[in-house]
Amino acid sequence: MTSLSSVTPHDNLSPVAQAAHRARAAAADLAPLPRSAKDEALQAIAEALEVRTAEIIEANAVDVERARAAGTSESVIDRLTLTPERVRAIAADVRQVAALPDPVGEVVRGSTLPNGIDLRQVRVPLGVVGIIYEARPNVTVDGAALCLKSGNAVLLRGSSSAYSSNTALVAVIRDAVGGSGLPADAVQLVPGESRDSVTELMRARGMVDVLIPRGGASLIRTVVEGSTVPVIETGTGNCHVYVDADTDIDMAVDILVNSKAQRPSVCNAAETLLVHRDVADAFLPRALDALAEAGVTVHGDERVVSYAEATKATVVPAVAEDWETEYLSYDIAAAVVDSLDAAVAHIRLWSSGHTEAIVTTSQAAARRFTRLVDSTTVAVNASTRFTDGGQFGFGAEIGISTQKLHARGPMGLPELTSTKYIVTGDGHTR
Amino acid sequence: MTSLSSVTPHDNLSPVAQAAHRARAAAADLAPLPRSAKDEALQAIAEALEVRTAEIIEANAVDVERARAAGTSESVIDRLTLTPERVRAIAADVRQVAALPDPVGEVVRGSTLPNGIDLRQVRVPLGVVGIIYEARPNVTVDGAALCLKSGNAVLLRGSSSAYSSNTALVAVIRDAVGGSGLPADAVQLVPGESRDSVTELMRARGMVDVLIPRGGASLIRTVVEGSTVPVIETGTGNCHVYVDADTDIDMAVDILVNSKAQRPSVCNAAETLLVHRDVADAFLPRALDALAEAGVTVHGDERVVSYAEATKATVVPAVAEDWETEYLSYDIAAAVVDSLDAAVAHIRLWSSGHTEAIVTTSQAAARRFTRLVDSTTVAVNASTRFTDGGQFGFGAEIGISTQKLHARGPMGLPELTSTKYIVTGDGHTR
Repeated sequence: MTSLSSVTPHDNLSPVAQAAHRARAAAADLAPLPRSAKDEALQAIAEALEVRTAEIIEANAVDVERARAAGTSESVIDRLTLTPERVRAIAADVRQVAALPDPVGEVVRGSTLPNGIDLRQVRVPLGVVGIIYEARPNVTVDGAALCLKSGNAVLLRGSSSAYSSNTALVAVIRDAVGGSGLPADAVQLVPGESRDSVTELMRARGMVDVLIPRGGASLIRTVVEGSTVPVIETGTGNCHVYVDADTDIDMAVDILVNSKAQRPSVCNAAETLLVHRDVADAFLPRALDALAEAGVTVHGDERVVSYAEATKATVVPAVAEDWETEYLSYDIAAAVVDSLDAAVAHIRLWSSGHTEAIVTTSQAAARRFTRLVDSTTVAVNASTRFTDGGQFGFGAEIGISTQKLHARGPMGLPELTSTKYIVTGDGHTR
Repeated sequence: MTSLSSVTPHDNLSPVAQAAHRARAAAADLAPLPRSAKDEALQAIAEALEVRTAEIIEANAVDVERARAAGTSESVIDRLTLTPERVRAIAADVRQVAALPDPVGEVVRGSTLPNGIDLRQVRVPLGVVGIIYEARPNVTVDGAALCLKSGNAVLLRGSSSAYSSNTALVAVIRDAVGGSGLPADAVQLVPGESRDSVTELMRARGMVDVLIPRGGASLIRTVVEGSTVPVIETGTGNCHVYVDADTDIDMAVDILVNSKAQRPSVCNAAETLLVHRDVADAFLPRALDALAEAGVTVHGDERVVSYAEATKATVVPAVAEDWETEYLSYDIAAAVVDSLDAAVAHIRLWSSGHTEAIVTTSQAAARRFTRLVDSTTVAVNASTRFTDGGQFGFGAEIGISTQKLHARGPMGLPELTSTKYIVTGDGHTR
């Protein structure tokens, strides 16, 4: 029922359903467009963001003032705030998306069948993508740019705390898209600030092809559990660093500190350290000191606690919840394990399946760990912080999928596409 | 929370949840197995099916007798019935799955990043696959074989009308799997014949990685709308054949009749014919006669009806529902359209997005149709009946996905996998 839009009288529909119908029509127009048409629109968006910066910042000031009046924390206000520099950076990101290859039309698989039929599997847009997200207004522009480039229409449902900023940004984007001859309805802000519009989006199966929630754990859980529209789950990262019996101590300390403390607020930061018992004497005193220097509090099991006294570290006894906590702060859980397999069992039990790293000099250990650990990313002698679309060379990222269906790990442009088969014959019948 | 199995006391769980926990544990053991171990188990299954045929047929007789007593139609009873020949054919199918390449371990993408890190994206099993299906007991064996080969544990929830057959088949399979040294719990029949077990399976998010419903439209709708577990929607096919203005009339008649009548009960059979008005005079009289000869009733719009008198055809006036009906019988809806774009608009409005064919001699028309039609498969000068895993050379098929996420079109072994990234460095940090 993809195009009921052409017969359903829009007036009888809710504002969200109307937006979804317009998005479907726009998606049908976008799908066959060649790269040049999409890139022109992206360049126009980048330029419009720069030309109309004052208007955007004025709208943003309304949100910032409201947040301040509501006593919002300074860190959240900082993420919400737009400055001329930040708008310029957002525009630069859009130009970067324009420079990426177009995933649409890529032949994924192709062959001539024994009967002479030519079979090709080609990438096509998903159709209508819904993004439900929190706080940061740059997601509005990122999401629009990535969806446009991949030929998708997008329904953006940002947080009500950024409603004024998002309204201004989407107005600028729509003008630029329309001015480039593409359907402006390819980019729409979902109308309404209430929770109802989220619920409606979640139930719009057949109108919306996929929902991508970006934000805190409770938002993601709500969308995952309540949607009839297919969802790509993103983001929760209870990442582990396992220091193997055979290891380079310096390397292990560096990777641990980088994984934990280089940027603790992100999903690919480490949250648990596991240490093989054979290396605990050599590694833990140095590791605890290094963590202390980085300002990290350690939530240790009994064996880890026993090493604390001789170090500068703040070590508190771990409780069960520590093993499943995504701190997103200068905290880390830590345990000594009896074997690599015990580390794997711990990870299987507690990990959110995002990223786990092993630091080892043993080829056999590296091989066993990568085979047995089932997470989006398994790192060998590298920081967990590399799980990122930019780091992986994807050029852009719409999120990091922690589910197994469709996309797993950092999602770039190809992850915003589906495929179709084209069968070409000369009158072939069965 | 993948392996709560190791801490949750099974006794407090429902039988379905217990089965799911055992499946997760089995999946963890299966995932790292090399192809040879899985193929050995598949060969053992094939042999066991042949050796224990009598036992299977005896169990099947219970189902058949019960169906007969309930007044079930002969066609359904035929699909339910197992004979020694059919069991041999099922065993042969299992051997064919063993002969297919192992999708697990395939490197999908790989590169060395600018910083020297080696990045590889490799195929891994999905984990636990749930299949909810109707009537035919061969799906029990097919599903088990395809899941085993792709390293997945499977929870089979067949129809209660085939419970005795499925119980016997799964017992044979589990003995063979266990005898080969693999975990027997990799293949389990979901306990209980009531609807409750289906509902429980649908809500087992975190324990079951994907649900694949195979069967009628109402089963599929129930699973799609009620599941928190990700679902791959399969099967509904309202397929179209569009005969373009520029066409080879003989070829068009052949493709139409083959698409409609070669096997009308399957999802890739054509259900609607669209004819460009410029070719209606030349094409429709011949097409209506050919359809009549094949025993097909035509549900035509006014213009189609106007051609009926001069032919042998049975043509009844089409009503609105005809355009969206998947007849699965010797019936076809038919309309004359004013242009290729009008055909595309009709397809967008009414198609289930399975397969649409164009018959044309025009390169421009073929190109426009394949670009504008958004279905799993677009056929040019070929029957809609080619949309099939076997025909596409996939060797086996778990169903035909009509959704856009994860898999679209015929699903072979790779579609039963996910991927993970392996990041290898020499102590890399950010």
